[in-house]
Amino acid sequence: MGRTVAHKLIEDHLVDGRMEPGEEIALRIDQTLTQDATGTLVMQELEALGLDRAQTEVSVQYVDHNLLQTDEKNAEDHAFLRSACRRYGIWYSKAGNGVSHPVHMQRFGIPGKSMVGSDSHTPASGSLGMLAIGVGGLEAALAIAGEPVYLRMPEIWGVRLTGELPPWTSAKDVILDMLRRHSVKGGLNRIIEYHGPGVATLLAMDRHVIANMGAELGATTTVFPSDFAVLEFLRTEGREDDYREILADDDATYDVTDEIDLSTLEPLIAKPSSPDNVVPVREVEGTEVGQVVIGSSANPGLRDFAIAAYLVKGRQASDALSFDVNPTSRQILADLTKMGGTFDLISAGARIHQAGCMGCIGMGQAPAVGHNSLRTFPRNFPGRSGTREDAVWLCSPETAAASALTGVITDPRSLAEKLGVEYPELPLPERSSVNTDMLVPPLPPEEARTQELVKGPNISDLPDMPPLPNEIEAPVLLKVGDNISTDEISPAGAKALPFRSNVPQLATFTFDRIDPTYPRRAKATEDTGHFVVGGDNYGQGSSREHAAITPRYLGLHAVIAKSFARIHWQNLANFGILALEFADPADYDRIDQGDVLSVRDLRDSLADHGELTIRNATKGEEYRLRHQLSPRQLEAVVAGGRIPMLARS
Amino acid sequence: MGRTVAHKLIEDHLVDGRMEPGEEIALRIDQTLTQDATGTLVMQELEALGLDRAQTEVSVQYVDHNLLQTDEKNAEDHAFLRSACRRYGIWYSKAGNGVSHPVHMQRFGIPGKSMVGSDSHTPASGSLGMLAIGVGGLEAALAIAGEPVYLRMPEIWGVRLTGELPPWTSAKDVILDMLRRHSVKGGLNRIIEYHGPGVATLLAMDRHVIANMGAELGATTTVFPSDFAVLEFLRTEGREDDYREILADDDATYDVTDEIDLSTLEPLIAKPSSPDNVVPVREVEGTEVGQVVIGSSANPGLRDFAIAAYLVKGRQASDALSFDVNPTSRQILADLTKMGGTFDLISAGARIHQAGCMGCIGMGQAPAVGHNSLRTFPRNFPGRSGTREDAVWLCSPETAAASALTGVITDPRSLAEKLGVEYPELPLPERSSVNTDMLVPPLPPEEARTQELVKGPNISDLPDMPPLPNEIEAPVLLKVGDNISTDEISPAGAKALPFRSNVPQLATFTFDRIDPTYPRRAKATEDTGHFVVGGDNYGQGSSREHAAITPRYLGLHAVIAKSFARIHWQNLANFGILALEFADPADYDRIDQGDVLSVRDLRDSLADHGELTIRNATKGEEYRLRHQLSPRQLEAVVAGGRIPMLARS
Repeated sequence: MGRTVAHKLIEDHLVDGRMEPGEEIALRIDQTLTQDATGTLVMQELEALGLDRAQTEVSVQYVDHNLLQTDEKNAEDHAFLRSACRRYGIWYSKAGNGVSHPVHMQRFGIPGKSMVGSDSHTPASGSLGMLAIGVGGLEAALAIAGEPVYLRMPEIWGVRLTGELPPWTSAKDVILDMLRRHSVKGGLNRIIEYHGPGVATLLAMDRHVIANMGAELGATTTVFPSDFAVLEFLRTEGREDDYREILADDDATYDVTDEIDLSTLEPLIAKPSSPDNVVPVREVEGTEVGQVVIGSSANPGLRDFAIAAYLVKGRQASDALSFDVNPTSRQILADLTKMGGTFDLISAGARIHQAGCMGCIGMGQAPAVGHNSLRTFPRNFPGRSGTREDAVWLCSPETAAASALTGVITDPRSLAEKLGVEYPELPLPERSSVNTDMLVPPLPPEEARTQELVKGPNISDLPDMPPLPNEIEAPVLLKVGDNISTDEISPAGAKALPFRSNVPQLATFTFDRIDPTYPRRAKATEDTGHFVVGGDNYGQGSSREHAAITPRYLGLHAVIAKSFARIHWQNLANFGILALEFADPADYDRIDQGDVLSVRDLRDSLADHGELTIRNATKGEEYRLRHQLSPRQLEAVVAGGRIPMLARS
Repeated sequence: MGRTVAHKLIEDHLVDGRMEPGEEIALRIDQTLTQDATGTLVMQELEALGLDRAQTEVSVQYVDHNLLQTDEKNAEDHAFLRSACRRYGIWYSKAGNGVSHPVHMQRFGIPGKSMVGSDSHTPASGSLGMLAIGVGGLEAALAIAGEPVYLRMPEIWGVRLTGELPPWTSAKDVILDMLRRHSVKGGLNRIIEYHGPGVATLLAMDRHVIANMGAELGATTTVFPSDFAVLEFLRTEGREDDYREILADDDATYDVTDEIDLSTLEPLIAKPSSPDNVVPVREVEGTEVGQVVIGSSANPGLRDFAIAAYLVKGRQASDALSFDVNPTSRQILADLTKMGGTFDLISAGARIHQAGCMGCIGMGQAPAVGHNSLRTFPRNFPGRSGTREDAVWLCSPETAAASALTGVITDPRSLAEKLGVEYPELPLPERSSVNTDMLVPPLPPEEARTQELVKGPNISDLPDMPPLPNEIEAPVLLKVGDNISTDEISPAGAKALPFRSNVPQLATFTFDRIDPTYPRRAKATEDTGHFVVGGDNYGQGSSREHAAITPRYLGLHAVIAKSFARIHWQNLANFGILALEFADPADYDRIDQGDVLSVRDLRDSLADHGELTIRNATKGEEYRLRHQLSPRQLEAVVAGGRIPMLARS
């Protein structure tokens, strides 16, 4: 039977398990990517693991999230990360070098390699034919230490692309179309593999857009073939020697199939406040806009900025809005500047920000309440912008630039027609302004061993994690609905992010957007611990393990939900929190916040069978629950998490 | 007797009083400048005054301070300011257009005009032969309403410049030399007027650097003649028609005289944490640096960025530091980009930030504790960077760029010699990239009257201000030392600044850097009110009237100090707080924090004579105090401040 690109990549890295959907498999990891908002914990974990030196081919620590530096905490995190990279043999990408995903693709991405990253958009490197998977920080730390990564073998979802994108549409419209049709849960436990003749019409950086936002579909990862476009990309980056062709076999078969005729697409936009709330731009044309932001890892390419610069050149952004441009990397900004695009954007009234994640992670440029913000970002979960009652829309750079000029949501096709603007051939450079001076290579081992970790006062130690009790009688402190994102469990944003290396402080923000009383109420019940009850797709969104560590620190024993998002489910296991599913989803409606739940002989029940019974002491009812933990994961949960388990062995 | 430039400017605008040092004079005001951190209160004051339309020739509201937008508050302030500008006939300079001082100079500065600005660096426009004075927001509001501005006639301090600056020194070294010799109090109650043959060797934008930081000397303002260099500047800006020659008479005499031979200057640097803590760079060469920042209103010119870009071109900033570039205006960034300087800076590893005040006002890029930060900024008061225990040094762009390359404090002369770099002729453009599209002109009066003020939830009303009690028996809640800055009274920075339009919230930060318990203790004694005791030069630094309003809101009746900085002294009077001076400065040492002071028949004592007696009930002692308030100011203080006084009339 013919193999898909995904099968080839997995087979090349398989160290344990069978490649049957649902089976646990273990993969050898060639590369890791960490960013500062999750990476400080990764480095604390490496310290806790007693690592001497990274065992991967390449591990890179990026500084792209916490760049606002409103006080000393961000800069102290940077100093800590730099020292840890020097200590452990890890590349250090300085603040200002850019967002991890495009920089990694440009400087380190190699077709055929496997990578895990403590960032949910890690799959972006799938654009080069890599197997790139977003994981919690601890998984990344273990991969750096040379451990395989465990996951359940996903289904392979083949999406056949035909045709070619019409003018004024771009890759963002492809992934928005996927989200429109399949929702934020559509990719759960699947790898999306794009194939077919339409793939050749997309630049590698266009594929990055689509692979990046595969995370919004909940997919394990996204892969593209490594073909001529990848070779072209690597040649532009001066790395053609890293090229290797990887194509699906002609007779490859997919577990799930789908097709998009690119020529039928039109400009699309995700309305507030979910990436799958997608409609054609023309349906919402004329809606007033208070802010337009271009950039982020979801539209990082030089092309994305150049098309915006082309459209606004010689014109002026509307008076009534703020036009923000967020370059994704130093290199892309340098190239855009050389092309004249930076000048055109500045002249059109754009505020040019430093290269980094910025508002995509709620670090700055938060919009006013009651003002629509159009962004080329990957996510618009409620409050993620930093504004509690925000109204964030997601669209392509073409739609964003057109709307910046008019002050209202605008289909770029209609504006181009009105202005008589031709769809351009963008003069992208044949060679990028490659400059690796902000990428600091690992120290030689002897020198590395003399490096001390530089820990500022805001860098806490990891909290103690006691084993799972055998009997729990504790209240449901919070009951939430479907699709709760990790942004809602442990927020990003300028207030919380500076505490990413300080678990006790960060814990005070837990569930802040849903119920700010949760940390206080958790404190009041710390003797018994507590439960959280959730709906479908609990823990979607980012890879941040803080969404597991901080409620754990506050006494959370178990989340009982209808279903879980993959990375968060893994993170819960890693940090000793039980992820339990309702055997009968209807039982969700029977539990109220405040109910006291009780379970006995927990360890035996968990080990003996996949199911257990929990008693609602308040209502006098019982519910059947089940778990999908592998024996390996179960052992970790019972031990209190993977760190205490490793510490014991 | 020959007249100085300062005398000519004052005489041209005098509407009341005699031009004798120490006498109160009233001046007609042609222009006003407000920025967002002080301007929201100005607009609230215009509303309280019931203004229909600005009465000045030009009033401009800039948005340059609060640009980080870590939540919705900044953006809501911007929306409020935009609506108020539309309502009151004021120019609106959008976020991203740049820092008020250079933008005002480039677009609105006219030789011979008078201006007040609710920003202490307003004197920067003195570079064009304007009389530009920093004032509290209420003074600016009254000027917008057509009222004259009152001040005590300052002494005129003539500083004769001879010679020419040697290579690798620049205007910053001139003002640092002034600070080294005269301290932060050297300019109190003085106007500094530069004259002599050396003036002609300085570009208008160089003069801006010197006039801007005259604020650090405590001067009322700084003036330069309007000469050929000013004409050249205006020609570059496409405004040569606004030129008018204003020179001192040949036989002009100054109240105080001083001289600098520019050719004797060398690179200077202010050590932490006062602008007058100045030493030659060579004395501190080799000190490790964690951050270098180029920009701010104290080095705003295209030349300042271009010289840095020239030095770092083809080289790389040191690994161990963050190299931050903070363009001061959209126009300057556009010109720098056109010249290729932006590309050179990016390539050298600079993080390019949006045009605005940024770290100069503690809005971002705060350094780590224990890391020296070199900045081309005007001020390095403790904690102003956003980091509580910061170590900020002030220097020229030449010194900053040289140090960015080496990672240690470096004299640019020695680095240039080592690298074999010639001191350049910078190819500055003959015409700037003038683009006024982010400067929104006032609406026509009829349309303006229909504009509603857009007040988000964070924009409070002004608090009530009851009249001064006739008897006070109240504790000294705080005793502080010399040179307490308004940064220490009401901090800027990312935590506090978003509350600049919300007095009750902002008050919780009062004296935060000195004693965070002050707001709580003030609350506990709100029945009696309280005193603050200070040393010399109390209230130096910025013009923020928040440093008067917030302690007033917390119950402050009077500050008893050895001496006061001018703008803050004025702000205290405007908001109904008595500024009292020790007749015998030795009495300062007799009062302890916690002592209860008592005074009777306060209104009569204040009115009858400039002196009064206060009793220390705790110690059983009495002290003689005096005030320097004019009858007009006294009336305002007794009424509870100028707003209640105006409301009553």
